[in-house]
Amino acid sequence: MSTHSFQAPKGTRDFYPSDLAVRRHIEQAWRSASIDCGFDEVEGPTFEHLELYTAKSGEGIVNELFSFRRAGGENDYALRPEFTPTLARMVAARAGSLPVPVKWFAIPNMFRAERPQRGRLREFVQWNIDTCGVEGAATDVDVIAVAILALERLGLTPADVQVRLSHRVAIARMLGALGVAAERTGDAMTLLDRRDKLKPEEFAQRAEALGLSADGVARFDAAARATQRLSDPVSALAARIGVSADEFASLDEVRAAADRAGILDWCSVDVGIVRGLAYYTGTVFEVHEVSGAERAVAGGGRYDGLVELFGGPKMPACGFGMGDVVLANVLRDRKLLPEDGAALLPRPDAFVISAGGELAEAELPRLLMRLRRAGLHARSSAKATRNVGKLLGDAGKARARFAVILGAELAEGSVALKDLDAGSQQVTPLAGLADLLLSARQR
Amino acid sequence: MSTHSFQAPKGTRDFYPSDLAVRRHIEQAWRSASIDCGFDEVEGPTFEHLELYTAKSGEGIVNELFSFRRAGGENDYALRPEFTPTLARMVAARAGSLPVPVKWFAIPNMFRAERPQRGRLREFVQWNIDTCGVEGAATDVDVIAVAILALERLGLTPADVQVRLSHRVAIARMLGALGVAAERTGDAMTLLDRRDKLKPEEFAQRAEALGLSADGVARFDAAARATQRLSDPVSALAARIGVSADEFASLDEVRAAADRAGILDWCSVDVGIVRGLAYYTGTVFEVHEVSGAERAVAGGGRYDGLVELFGGPKMPACGFGMGDVVLANVLRDRKLLPEDGAALLPRPDAFVISAGGELAEAELPRLLMRLRRAGLHARSSAKATRNVGKLLGDAGKARARFAVILGAELAEGSVALKDLDAGSQQVTPLAGLADLLLSARQR
Repeated sequence: MSTHSFQAPKGTRDFYPSDLAVRRHIEQAWRSASIDCGFDEVEGPTFEHLELYTAKSGEGIVNELFSFRRAGGENDYALRPEFTPTLARMVAARAGSLPVPVKWFAIPNMFRAERPQRGRLREFVQWNIDTCGVEGAATDVDVIAVAILALERLGLTPADVQVRLSHRVAIARMLGALGVAAERTGDAMTLLDRRDKLKPEEFAQRAEALGLSADGVARFDAAARATQRLSDPVSALAARIGVSADEFASLDEVRAAADRAGILDWCSVDVGIVRGLAYYTGTVFEVHEVSGAERAVAGGGRYDGLVELFGGPKMPACGFGMGDVVLANVLRDRKLLPEDGAALLPRPDAFVISAGGELAEAELPRLLMRLRRAGLHARSSAKATRNVGKLLGDAGKARARFAVILGAELAEGSVALKDLDAGSQQVTPLAGLADLLLSARQR
Repeated sequence: MSTHSFQAPKGTRDFYPSDLAVRRHIEQAWRSASIDCGFDEVEGPTFEHLELYTAKSGEGIVNELFSFRRAGGENDYALRPEFTPTLARMVAARAGSLPVPVKWFAIPNMFRAERPQRGRLREFVQWNIDTCGVEGAATDVDVIAVAILALERLGLTPADVQVRLSHRVAIARMLGALGVAAERTGDAMTLLDRRDKLKPEEFAQRAEALGLSADGVARFDAAARATQRLSDPVSALAARIGVSADEFASLDEVRAAADRAGILDWCSVDVGIVRGLAYYTGTVFEVHEVSGAERAVAGGGRYDGLVELFGGPKMPACGFGMGDVVLANVLRDRKLLPEDGAALLPRPDAFVISAGGELAEAELPRLLMRLRRAGLHARSSAKATRNVGKLLGDAGKARARFAVILGAELAEGSVALKDLDAGSQQVTPLAGLADLLLSARQR
């Protein structure tokens, strides 16, 4: 066997306990925010029929997929590169019987056969939030608010990350007001999307090719770079671009809803956010670190045609995806993750120590199992030593709340209980130990 | 796009909320039992280099794997069919620096390209428990006890499932005492393993072919079917098979350790349990429904050569795997899962209802976000109706603990709070609502 076989495949990760503790910490914020906001968790297969992906994204996506066919089998499969097609397929299959609105979240692992680089791996975890069946800016804001809630729980603030949002309908109307013909709207949005990747001259040339006048090109250029706090009135934005505030009516609805939900300070308008994917139909947004140093933490928006595309009825929908890799980078940059992820591991309630002797040796395994049966996290040492000082050191290293020492008191049915946080010690009856530790946990 | 593309691939599952709630319920028992017993969670890549699996199991395993190669890539990969090779690879890679004993658990999804049937799917979830670095029966029992703790938390009792265990060293000694030559021990174990699949005559023929006398064949046959409670002395077992109790010394150590840990009633000795896999070296066990109607719920044992096989040092190891599919079948058979998995979904703390009016409409989204920011699970209706009776019905259907009604009292900064379990109602200030709901949650 070659040496590389003993390593994780390129672009995938081994999660040792301290690594997984970080991932679980992030997932816990995602999960709790989802549940608190009334979303139910779903999951699908890790691989799907290859056609599920080519149907939405065209044959071009095949190069980005890990696809395979079982030996002797007839079907082509692909490891999921995103969750949305699975979700749309699941909604479509039960569209008649699902309660509306459908509010689902998922935390699946996903796969992309790309060259690994910072913020981009071949296997990663992505939180998905989706609402189907309800239209309107209030729903879009509900979806954005879940993302914000999770970011807050991870310790981020509006000074760290911002939700940069726009609205496709508003942008289409703005483009019309700037002189872009209706049939060129898609091209103009593609150009907005690429603003950061093109040199100024190239950008201007392409804007001109959209059929814009010199004045139109200048205003289009201003629009492409236009950002402001969502708390500022859209009329200010309109004035800077030189269009009527009416064109931004749909964006103003998002603004009003965000105001009502109390998340204005987390949000900015960014006219250049259109999201590459063709299927978005309304509000679009990305979450970015304010410095812009990292890739997008999350991206999503309204995509009312999605469920229909996968064989279901016409159904309004809105959602987003947030990956673990960029988010963890941002949290690390902001010192919101411990240097050693082990600090995020669950703390033992009790570390049981035998001070030696027949009674203690017999009691140790019995007590461990009794505490565990009571729902307590109980550990002990595998070492042969009965040096209580050394074992107390191990209890400290394990980050245990209490050390339970089985010593001389055992003859009277008691143990020494050392509170390792407070440093205090007491003798307590064995019979009441589990209850005592359980109540200490709720402190 | 063909119709099948809109379905989950054969042998995989779509988890709608009520389905996933069942899976999460099972995983929660696995996770909490693991943590309480001092195991740390790990995870690895969903796919590995194909060679990682052929190294352990030979080329024959390839037919059972979903294997693939990236377009233009050089490496063959396979979706993981089990977690043990990943775990052994991870332990081997850091064997010098990991604290001993390594006590790890994982709950990965796995893949087998077999024909789907009852209890066997192409994608499933499997709980893995592994300890590396410590020898002895007490460690084997520690591992078995984690499984029992999880089964207890799922509501199972020793009358529902039993840990059927044996010990390879004891069996090898027994086989020697029965007259099997040392070099035929492996063949004899294979025959024990197949006892239920062979007709009596065929079994006897093969036993004879092991070089056994007529008496030896009779005793070998008795041994193959020998089971007893672990609480019974091994001398009883030895007497039935006609060998000295000394041959079962290593099994007696397991018995003594299980007694100390208080799990004797969960365990039986079953001489026919040898586990097909060649790498087990000591204690072996399977968890079975007592009726024997289902496949094994779990299987594992001691495999001291494992880490070495994957490039690490010689290191004693013991572990097991427990899949979700058979376990869920057993729980369903025993009525330990609700008819509708939705009953296992997290209950909303509050269902917020607007009775109409400008004040209430403005307060609703603000209050929802405020409650959620306080860590409460808060929902509302997407319906346009302001019929409080109808909306209270929705709150009940959502299984909310409380309904918060934004009505006339809002002008004085208060709301009506209806306890949906107790049926009582009170008027309470908006300002203290979150705290009130949080303390109600801890009741």
